[in-house]
Amino acid sequence: MTEVLFNEVLTLQVKSKDCEDRRTNIRVTIELQSTTNPIHKKDLVVRLTDDADPFFLYNLNISEEDFQSLKIQQGLLVEFSAFPQRFVDLLQQCIQEQTKDIPRFLLQLISSAPVLDHTPAFLNVVETNPFKHLTHLSLKLLPGTDATVKKYLAICLKCLKEEKLRLEQNLKKTEEDLSRQLNYTQQ
Amino acid sequence: MTEVLFNEVLTLQVKSKDCEDRRTNIRVTIELQSTTNPIHKKDLVVRLTDDADPFFLYNLNISEEDFQSLKIQQGLLVEFSAFPQRFVDLLQQCIQEQTKDIPRFLLQLISSAPVLDHTPAFLNVVETNPFKHLTHLSLKLLPGTDATVKKYLAICLKCLKEEKLRLEQNLKKTEEDLSRQLNYTQQ
Repeated sequence: MTEVLFNEVLTLQVKSKDCEDRRTNIRVTIELQSTTNPIHKKDLVVRLTDDADPFFLYNLNISEEDFQSLKIQQGLLVEFSAFPQRFVDLLQQCIQEQTKDIPRFLLQLISSAPVLDHTPAFLNVVETNPFKHLTHLSLKLLPGTDATVKKYLAICLKCLKEEKLRLEQNLKKTEEDLSRQLNYTQQ
Repeated sequence: MTEVLFNEVLTLQVKSKDCEDRRTNIRVTIELQSTTNPIHKKDLVVRLTDDADPFFLYNLNISEEDFQSLKIQQGLLVEFSAFPQRFVDLLQQCIQEQTKDIPRFLLQLISSAPVLDHTPAFLNVVETNPFKHLTHLSLKLLPGTDATVKKYLAICLKCLKEEKLRLEQNLKKTEEDLSRQLNYTQQ
Protein backbone atom coordinates (compact mmCIF):
# COMPACT_ATOMS: atom_id res chain seq x y z
CA MET A 1 0.00 0.00 0.00
CA THR A 2 1.29 3.42 -0.93
CA GLU A 3 0.31 6.56 0.95
CA VAL A 4 1.29 9.80 -0.76
CA LEU A 5 2.37 12.31 1.91
CA PHE A 6 3.64 15.06 -0.33
CA ASN A 7 3.51 15.72 -4.06
CA GLU A 8 4.36 19.27 -5.13
CA VAL A 9 6.49 21.17 -7.61
CA LEU A 10 9.19 23.14 -5.80
CA THR A 11 11.89 25.53 -6.86
CA LEU A 12 15.17 23.75 -6.40
CA GLN A 13 18.63 25.27 -6.37
CA VAL A 14 20.97 23.02 -8.34
CA LYS A 15 24.66 23.15 -7.58
CA SER A 16 26.87 21.01 -9.77
CA LYS A 17 30.62 20.91 -10.16
CA ASP A 18 32.23 23.77 -12.12
CA CYS A 19 28.78 25.17 -13.03
CA GLU A 20 26.89 28.27 -12.02
CA ASP A 21 24.13 27.62 -9.53
CA ARG A 22 20.78 27.44 -11.26
CA ARG A 23 17.15 27.24 -10.22
CA THR A 24 14.73 24.74 -11.65
CA ASN A 25 11.24 23.47 -10.87
CA ILE A 26 11.19 19.88 -9.67
CA ARG A 27 8.38 17.70 -8.40
CA VAL A 28 9.10 16.25 -4.96
CA THR A 29 7.08 13.21 -3.94
CA ILE A 30 7.17 11.59 -0.51
CA GLU A 31 5.43 8.25 -0.15
CA LEU A 32 5.06 5.77 2.66
CA GLN A 33 5.04 2.25 1.26
CA SER A 34 3.74 -0.45 3.60
CA THR A 35 4.07 -4.16 3.04
CA THR A 36 2.70 -6.80 5.44
CA ASN A 37 3.86 -9.86 3.57
CA PRO A 38 6.16 -11.62 4.48
CA ILE A 39 6.83 -9.17 7.32
CA HIS A 40 5.30 -5.88 8.36
CA LYS A 41 7.58 -3.24 6.88
CA LYS A 42 7.42 0.45 6.12
CA ASP A 43 9.57 2.33 3.64
CA LEU A 44 9.73 6.04 3.09
CA VAL A 45 10.28 6.88 -0.57
CA VAL A 46 11.58 10.28 -1.65
CA ARG A 47 11.46 10.98 -5.37
CA LEU A 48 12.48 13.95 -7.51
CA THR A 49 11.00 14.17 -10.99
CA ASP A 50 10.65 16.81 -13.68
CA ASP A 51 7.21 17.22 -15.28
CA ALA A 52 8.96 18.50 -18.43
CA ASP A 53 11.56 15.73 -18.68
CA PRO A 54 10.29 12.15 -18.34
CA PHE A 55 13.82 10.78 -17.91
CA PHE A 56 14.72 12.92 -14.87
CA LEU A 57 14.48 10.77 -11.75
CA TYR A 58 16.28 10.74 -8.43
CA ASN A 59 15.10 8.57 -5.58
CA LEU A 60 15.77 7.35 -2.10
CA ASN A 61 14.24 4.50 -0.18
CA ILE A 62 14.49 4.76 3.62
CA SER A 63 13.55 1.67 5.62
CA GLU A 64 13.14 1.76 9.40
CA GLU A 65 16.64 0.27 9.72
CA ASP A 66 18.15 2.79 7.30
CA PHE A 67 16.53 5.52 9.35
CA GLN A 68 18.52 4.55 12.46
CA SER A 69 21.80 5.30 10.65
CA LEU A 70 20.35 8.49 9.16
CA LYS A 71 19.20 9.54 12.63
CA ILE A 72 22.67 9.11 14.12
CA GLN A 73 24.49 10.56 11.11
CA GLN A 74 22.33 13.73 10.97
CA GLY A 75 21.72 14.05 14.70
CA LEU A 76 17.95 13.80 14.32
CA LEU A 77 15.80 13.82 17.45
CA VAL A 78 12.64 12.26 15.98
CA GLU A 79 11.68 8.64 15.38
CA PHE A 80 10.89 7.06 11.99
CA SER A 81 7.14 7.49 12.54
CA ALA A 82 7.44 11.27 13.07
CA PHE A 83 10.13 11.88 10.48
CA PRO A 84 7.99 12.10 7.28
CA GLN A 85 5.78 14.87 8.68
CA ARG A 86 8.82 16.85 9.86
CA PHE A 87 10.33 16.51 6.38
CA VAL A 88 7.04 17.70 4.81
CA ASP A 89 7.02 20.68 7.22
CA LEU A 90 10.52 21.63 6.05
CA LEU A 91 9.45 21.42 2.40
CA GLN A 92 6.41 23.58 3.14
CA GLN A 93 8.74 26.19 4.61
CA CYS A 94 10.79 26.09 1.40
CA ILE A 95 7.58 26.62 -0.64
CA GLN A 96 6.61 29.63 1.48
CA GLU A 97 10.02 31.19 0.91
CA GLN A 98 10.64 30.25 -2.71
CA THR A 99 9.30 33.44 -4.33
CA LYS A 100 11.53 35.62 -2.19
CA ASP A 101 14.82 37.02 -3.48
CA ILE A 102 16.66 35.78 -0.44
CA PRO A 103 14.68 32.79 0.81
CA ARG A 104 15.23 31.81 4.41
CA PHE A 105 14.56 28.15 3.63
CA LEU A 106 15.96 26.68 0.45
CA LEU A 107 15.90 23.26 -1.16
CA GLN A 108 19.22 22.39 -2.78
CA LEU A 109 20.37 19.54 -5.00
CA ILE A 110 24.12 19.18 -4.92
CA SER A 111 26.03 16.98 -7.32
CA SER A 112 29.77 16.35 -7.44
CA ALA A 113 29.55 15.87 -11.21
CA PRO A 114 29.32 18.74 -13.74
CA VAL A 115 25.86 17.62 -14.88
CA LEU A 116 23.04 15.76 -13.18
CA ASP A 117 23.41 12.35 -14.71
CA HIS A 118 24.59 9.11 -13.17
CA THR A 119 26.06 10.40 -9.94
CA PRO A 120 24.33 10.42 -6.56
CA ALA A 121 23.22 13.87 -5.45
CA PHE A 122 22.43 15.40 -2.09
CA LEU A 123 19.04 16.94 -1.43
CA ASN A 124 19.50 19.52 1.31
CA VAL A 125 17.05 21.69 3.19
CA VAL A 126 19.07 24.74 4.14
CA GLU A 127 18.10 27.63 6.37
CA THR A 128 20.03 30.83 5.87
CA ASN A 129 20.13 33.20 8.84
CA PRO A 130 22.22 36.36 9.13
CA PHE A 131 24.99 34.31 10.67
CA LYS A 132 25.26 31.11 8.65
CA HIS A 133 23.76 28.35 6.51
CA LEU A 134 22.12 25.66 8.62
CA THR A 135 21.51 22.29 6.96
CA HIS A 136 18.33 20.89 8.52
CA LEU A 137 18.44 17.72 6.47
CA SER A 138 20.71 16.18 3.85
CA LEU A 139 19.56 13.10 1.94
CA LYS A 140 21.65 11.17 -0.56
CA LEU A 141 19.55 10.43 -3.63
CA LEU A 142 20.41 8.03 -6.43
CA PRO A 143 19.77 8.86 -10.09
CA GLY A 144 17.23 6.58 -11.80
CA THR A 145 18.55 3.70 -13.87
CA ASP A 146 16.87 2.73 -17.15
CA ALA A 147 14.98 0.05 -15.19
CA THR A 148 13.72 2.37 -12.43
CA VAL A 149 12.80 5.14 -14.89
CA LYS A 150 10.94 2.54 -16.97
CA LYS A 151 8.93 1.41 -13.91
CA TYR A 152 8.23 4.99 -12.87
CA LEU A 153 6.99 5.93 -16.36
CA ALA A 154 4.73 2.86 -16.45
CA ILE A 155 3.07 4.02 -13.20
CA CYS A 156 2.67 7.56 -14.61
CA LEU A 157 1.13 6.13 -17.76
CA LYS A 158 -1.35 4.04 -15.75
CA CYS A 159 -2.44 7.06 -13.67
CA LEU A 160 -2.74 9.26 -16.75
CA LYS A 161 -4.86 6.63 -18.55
CA GLU A 162 -7.22 6.55 -15.56
CA GLU A 163 -7.44 10.36 -15.48
CA LYS A 164 -8.11 10.40 -19.23
CA LEU A 165 -10.91 7.82 -18.82
CA ARG A 166 -12.49 9.89 -16.03
CA LEU A 167 -12.32 13.00 -18.22
CA GLU A 168 -13.93 11.18 -21.14
CA GLN A 169 -16.74 9.98 -18.90
CA ASN A 170 -17.12 13.46 -17.45
CA LEU A 171 -17.28 15.00 -20.91
CA LYS A 172 -19.90 12.48 -22.07
CA LYS A 173 -22.02 13.03 -18.95
CA THR A 174 -21.77 16.84 -19.23
CA GLU A 175 -22.82 16.73 -22.88
CA GLU A 176 -25.77 14.48 -22.07
CA ASP A 177 -26.87 16.44 -18.99
CA LEU A 178 -26.79 19.80 -20.65
CA SER A 179 -28.39 18.57 -23.89
CA ARG A 180 -31.19 17.13 -21.85
CA GLN A 181 -31.68 20.38 -19.95
CA LEU A 182 -31.53 22.29 -23.17
CA ASN A 183 -34.17 20.07 -24.78
CA TYR A 184 -36.31 20.43 -21.70
CA THR A 185 -36.20 24.23 -21.62
CA GLN A 186 -36.78 24.47 -25.38
CA GLN A 187 -40.05 22.54 -25.15
CA MET B 1 9.66 12.91 -39.23
CA THR B 2 7.53 9.93 -38.32
CA GLU B 3 4.66 8.75 -40.51
CA VAL B 4 2.40 6.17 -38.86
CA LEU B 5 1.31 3.67 -41.52
CA PHE B 6 -0.46 1.17 -39.29
CA ASN B 7 -1.51 1.15 -35.64
CA GLU B 8 -4.01 -1.56 -34.70
CA VAL B 9 -4.61 -4.21 -32.06
CA LEU B 10 -4.44 -7.68 -33.63
CA THR B 11 -4.95 -11.18 -32.37
CA LEU B 12 -1.57 -12.82 -32.32
CA GLN B 13 -0.80 -16.51 -31.99
CA VAL B 14 2.14 -16.93 -29.60
CA LYS B 15 4.26 -20.06 -29.90
CA SER B 16 6.99 -20.43 -27.32
CA LYS B 17 9.19 -23.38 -26.44
CA ASP B 18 7.56 -26.21 -24.45
CA CYS B 19 4.35 -24.18 -24.08
CA GLU B 20 0.87 -24.54 -25.48
CA ASP B 21 0.10 -22.10 -28.27
CA ARG B 22 -1.91 -19.17 -26.99
CA ARG B 23 -3.69 -16.19 -28.47
CA THR B 24 -3.25 -12.67 -27.23
CA ASN B 25 -4.14 -9.16 -28.37
CA ILE B 26 -1.13 -7.11 -29.36
CA ARG B 27 -0.82 -3.66 -30.86
CA VAL B 28 1.17 -3.61 -34.08
CA THR B 29 2.60 -0.27 -35.16
CA ILE B 30 4.38 0.36 -38.46
CA GLU B 31 6.10 3.69 -38.86
CA LEU B 32 8.23 5.27 -41.56
CA GLN B 33 10.90 7.43 -39.96
CA SER B 34 12.62 9.90 -42.28
CA THR B 35 15.75 11.85 -41.49
CA THR B 36 17.36 14.31 -43.87
CA ASN B 37 20.29 15.31 -41.72
CA PRO B 38 23.15 14.41 -42.21
CA ILE B 39 21.90 12.25 -45.09
CA HIS B 40 18.48 11.49 -46.49
CA LYS B 41 17.48 8.20 -44.89
CA LYS B 42 14.30 6.24 -44.37
CA ASP B 43 13.75 3.56 -41.74
CA LEU B 44 10.77 1.30 -41.38
CA VAL B 45 9.97 0.62 -37.73
CA VAL B 46 7.84 -2.35 -36.69
CA ARG B 47 6.75 -2.41 -33.06
CA LEU B 48 4.68 -4.83 -30.99
CA THR B 49 3.23 -3.52 -27.73
CA ASP B 50 0.58 -4.61 -25.28
CA ASP B 51 -1.95 -1.96 -24.15
CA ALA B 52 -2.34 -3.90 -20.88
CA ASP B 53 1.37 -4.37 -20.15
CA PRO B 54 3.57 -1.27 -20.43
CA PHE B 55 6.75 -3.36 -20.35
CA PHE B 56 5.93 -5.53 -23.37
CA LEU B 57 7.90 -4.28 -26.36
CA TYR B 58 9.37 -5.95 -29.43
CA ASN B 59 10.76 -3.93 -32.26
CA LEU B 60 12.56 -3.98 -35.56
CA ASN B 61 14.21 -1.22 -37.49
CA ILE B 62 14.60 -1.83 -41.23
CA SER B 63 16.79 0.60 -43.16
CA GLU B 64 16.93 0.62 -46.96
CA GLU B 65 20.20 -1.36 -46.77
CA ASP B 66 18.73 -3.89 -44.32
CA PHE B 67 15.84 -4.32 -46.71
CA GLN B 68 18.14 -5.56 -49.47
CA SER B 69 19.22 -8.53 -47.32
CA LEU B 70 15.62 -9.13 -46.22
CA LYS B 71 14.53 -9.07 -49.86
CA ILE B 72 17.05 -11.71 -50.87
CA GLN B 73 16.56 -13.82 -47.74
CA GLN B 74 12.76 -13.92 -48.04
CA GLY B 75 12.58 -13.91 -51.84
CA LEU B 76 10.56 -10.67 -51.92
CA LEU B 77 9.69 -9.15 -55.29
CA VAL B 78 8.95 -5.59 -54.14
CA GLU B 79 11.23 -2.66 -53.47
CA PHE B 80 11.65 -0.87 -50.12
CA SER B 81 9.21 1.88 -51.17
CA ALA B 82 6.41 -0.62 -51.87
CA PHE B 83 7.15 -2.98 -48.98
CA PRO B 84 5.35 -1.14 -46.11
CA GLN B 85 2.00 -1.09 -47.93
CA ARG B 86 2.29 -4.80 -48.80
CA PHE B 87 3.03 -5.56 -45.16
CA VAL B 88 -0.01 -3.48 -44.08
CA ASP B 89 -2.14 -5.37 -46.64
CA LEU B 90 -1.05 -8.69 -45.10
CA LEU B 91 -1.93 -7.44 -41.60
CA GLN B 92 -5.35 -6.30 -42.85
CA GLN B 93 -5.93 -9.82 -44.16
CA CYS B 94 -5.04 -11.19 -40.70
CA ILE B 95 -7.57 -8.77 -39.13
CA GLN B 96 -10.31 -9.89 -41.53
CA GLU B 97 -9.68 -13.52 -40.62
CA GLN B 98 -8.97 -13.22 -36.90
CA THR B 99 -12.52 -13.89 -35.64
CA LYS B 100 -12.75 -17.13 -37.62
CA ASP B 101 -12.13 -20.51 -36.00
CA ILE B 102 -9.70 -21.48 -38.72
CA PRO B 103 -8.29 -18.21 -40.02
CA ARG B 104 -6.76 -18.34 -43.46
CA PHE B 105 -4.28 -15.59 -42.57
CA LEU B 106 -2.66 -15.63 -39.16
CA LEU B 107 -0.12 -13.47 -37.38
CA GLN B 108 2.31 -15.53 -35.30
CA LEU B 109 5.01 -14.63 -32.80
CA ILE B 110 7.47 -17.46 -32.39
CA SER B 111 10.06 -17.56 -29.64
CA SER B 112 12.70 -20.20 -29.01
CA ALA B 113 12.52 -19.49 -25.26
CA PRO B 114 9.77 -20.79 -22.93
CA VAL B 115 8.55 -17.28 -22.20
CA LEU B 116 8.62 -14.03 -24.14
CA ASP B 117 11.41 -12.24 -22.37
CA HIS B 118 14.87 -11.38 -23.56
CA THR B 119 15.08 -13.56 -26.65
CA PRO B 120 14.47 -12.39 -30.21
CA ALA B 121 11.18 -13.61 -31.65
CA PHE B 122 9.89 -14.08 -35.19
CA LEU B 123 6.78 -12.29 -36.35
CA ASN B 124 5.29 -14.36 -39.16
CA VAL B 125 2.35 -13.78 -41.44
CA VAL B 126 1.15 -17.27 -42.31
CA GLU B 127 -1.47 -18.33 -44.81
CA THR B 128 -3.01 -21.73 -44.25
CA ASN B 129 -4.50 -23.38 -47.30
CA PRO B 130 -5.81 -26.96 -47.52
CA PHE B 131 -2.40 -28.11 -48.59
CA LYS B 132 0.13 -26.33 -46.36
CA HIS B 133 1.22 -23.34 -44.26
CA LEU B 134 2.72 -20.58 -46.40
CA THR B 135 4.87 -18.01 -44.66
CA HIS B 136 4.37 -14.72 -46.52
CA LEU B 137 6.74 -12.81 -44.30
CA SER B 138 8.99 -13.56 -41.32
CA LEU B 139 10.58 -10.70 -39.41
CA LYS B 140 13.05 -11.08 -36.56
CA LEU B 141 12.07 -8.74 -33.74
CA LEU B 142 14.17 -7.83 -30.72
CA PRO B 143 12.70 -7.55 -27.23
CA GLY B 144 12.87 -4.07 -25.73
CA THR B 145 15.71 -3.30 -23.34
CA ASP B 146 15.11 -1.17 -20.24
CA ALA B 147 16.44 1.79 -22.24
CA THR B 148 14.17 1.27 -25.28
CA VAL B 149 11.10 0.55 -23.12
CA LYS B 150 11.88 3.73 -21.14
CA LYS B 151 12.02 5.79 -24.34
CA TYR B 152 8.86 4.21 -25.70
CA LEU B 153 6.94 4.90 -22.44
CA ALA B 154 8.12 8.52 -22.42
CA ILE B 155 6.65 8.97 -25.93
CA CYS B 156 3.37 7.31 -24.81
CA LEU B 157 3.25 9.63 -21.81
CA LYS B 158 3.78 12.70 -23.97
CA CYS B 159 0.95 11.69 -26.36
CA LEU B 160 -1.39 10.86 -23.49
CA LYS B 161 -0.70 14.22 -21.82
CA GLU B 162 -1.60 15.98 -25.08
CA GLU B 163 -4.81 13.93 -25.42
CA LYS B 164 -5.70 14.73 -21.80
CA LEU B 165 -5.14 18.44 -22.41
CA ARG B 166 -7.37 18.34 -25.50
CA LEU B 167 -10.07 16.54 -23.50
CA GLU B 168 -9.88 19.11 -20.70
CA GLN B 169 -10.21 21.94 -23.22
CA ASN B 170 -13.08 20.12 -24.92
CA LEU B 171 -14.87 19.59 -21.60
CA LYS B 172 -14.45 23.25 -20.65
CA LYS B 173 -15.71 24.42 -24.04
CA THR B 174 -18.70 22.04 -23.98
CA GLU B 175 -19.67 23.21 -20.50
CA GLU B 176 -19.43 26.86 -21.53
CA ASP B 177 -21.26 26.40 -24.86
CA LEU B 178 -24.16 24.50 -23.43
CA SER B 179 -24.48 26.71 -20.33
CA ARG B 180 -24.66 29.71 -22.64
CA GLN B 181 -27.33 28.08 -24.80
CA LEU B 182 -29.21 27.07 -21.69
CA ASN B 183 -29.11 30.60 -20.32
CA TYR B 184 -30.24 31.94 -23.67
CA THR B 185 -33.25 29.63 -23.96
CA GLN B 186 -34.24 30.21 -20.35
CA GLN B 187 -34.49 33.95 -20.87
